[in-house]
Amino acid sequence: MRLYHHPASSNARRVVMTAKLLNVPLELVEIDLADEGERRRLGELNPNAMVPVLQDGDFMLWESCAIMQYLADLSPGQTLYPHEARARADVNRWMFWACQHFSPAIGVMTWENIWKSQVGAGDTDLAELARGEREVLRFGQVLDRHLAGRDYRHRVDHGCADGIRPTESEKRSPESAFIVAV
Amino acid sequence: MRLYHHPASSNARRVVMTAKLLNVPLELVEIDLADEGERRRLGELNPNAMVPVLQDGDFMLWESCAIMQYLADLSPGQTLYPHEARARADVNRWMFWACQHFSPAIGVMTWENIWKSQVGAGDTDLAELARGEREVLRFGQVLDRHLAGRDYRHRVDHGCADGIRPTESEKRSPESAFIVAV
Repeated sequence: MRLYHHPASSNARRVVMTAKLLNVPLELVEIDLADEGERRRLGELNPNAMVPVLQDGDFMLWESCAIMQYLADLSPGQTLYPHEARARADVNRWMFWACQHFSPAIGVMTWENIWKSQVGAGDTDLAELARGEREVLRFGQVLDRHLAGRDYRHRVDHGCADGIRPTESEKRSPESAFIVAV
Repeated sequence: MRLYHHPASSNARRVVMTAKLLNVPLELVEIDLADEGERRRLGELNPNAMVPVLQDGDFMLWESCAIMQYLADLSPGQTLYPHEARARADVNRWMFWACQHFSPAIGVMTWENIWKSQVGAGDTDLAELARGEREVLRFGQVLDRHLAGRDYRHRVDHGCADGIRPTESEKRSPESAFIVAV
């Protein structure tokens, strides 16, 4: 399977991390998001013109969380994405929460502070930045309260590019592996 | 099972619709979102202080899409949420897409145009409204292109409150039932 990605995209990175945790080999193809031509070609792979995009034969899949779940569904015996209904619902809850609330808030910050200037989309919009900060604080408090008292640390042996192995705690509480990958 | 909801919340309505399609009985408990005390109590059920919230015994679940998937997982033999990996990934893709892109855009419009005044949160922010319109147009085009040529109409026999039955087309293409419920 091939993954169109960019190393600076946290959405792409969480798919790469998931594939490593599941021992699913991926052929990584980097998209130069600063190049207009490559962004146009990306729009042919994903109508939202965003990374990551998974190519599995003739099946094209985008939306990072859907790709993560698909990779788990293709991995018999995997324990990262639970099979039991309530445990799975708990993982799904946090993935949807991240997509609906936390990730868009973080996205405002990274767009205004980092990406906007790199793709020549104008100056930082201070009102937008303030809105992003408010939302990060609002939903960050929800995450803080959830994580308080839980052991959610990741042991990264060789760095993100080389390999990530789940801790014993992550094996017991798999949603943490998804949350930290937000 | 009990669902804390509000009839004007599209997030709550899509859970109610899903439960009807799956023939899962739900005890509906309406939360008065305009009442500060009820909103505070809602915050004890869901740290995001949002509807819907599902109570299944001692298991509390929030995030509407996670609830929809959970109800499907509890329904043996259901055909709304596919079991085959690619078909399921396609439904997941559109649910995450809606949560990450389309629903936040719609949310800006409904917050600024409807909810803000009802909860006494001040006047409409015209810059925010313009941002919401841009995002709805941007992602609405993605949805338009996806739906072009597909039969995604819903046959609503008795209205949302009384019952919704899937069309033959929806049975063949179940993601449409989820998309329209955005």
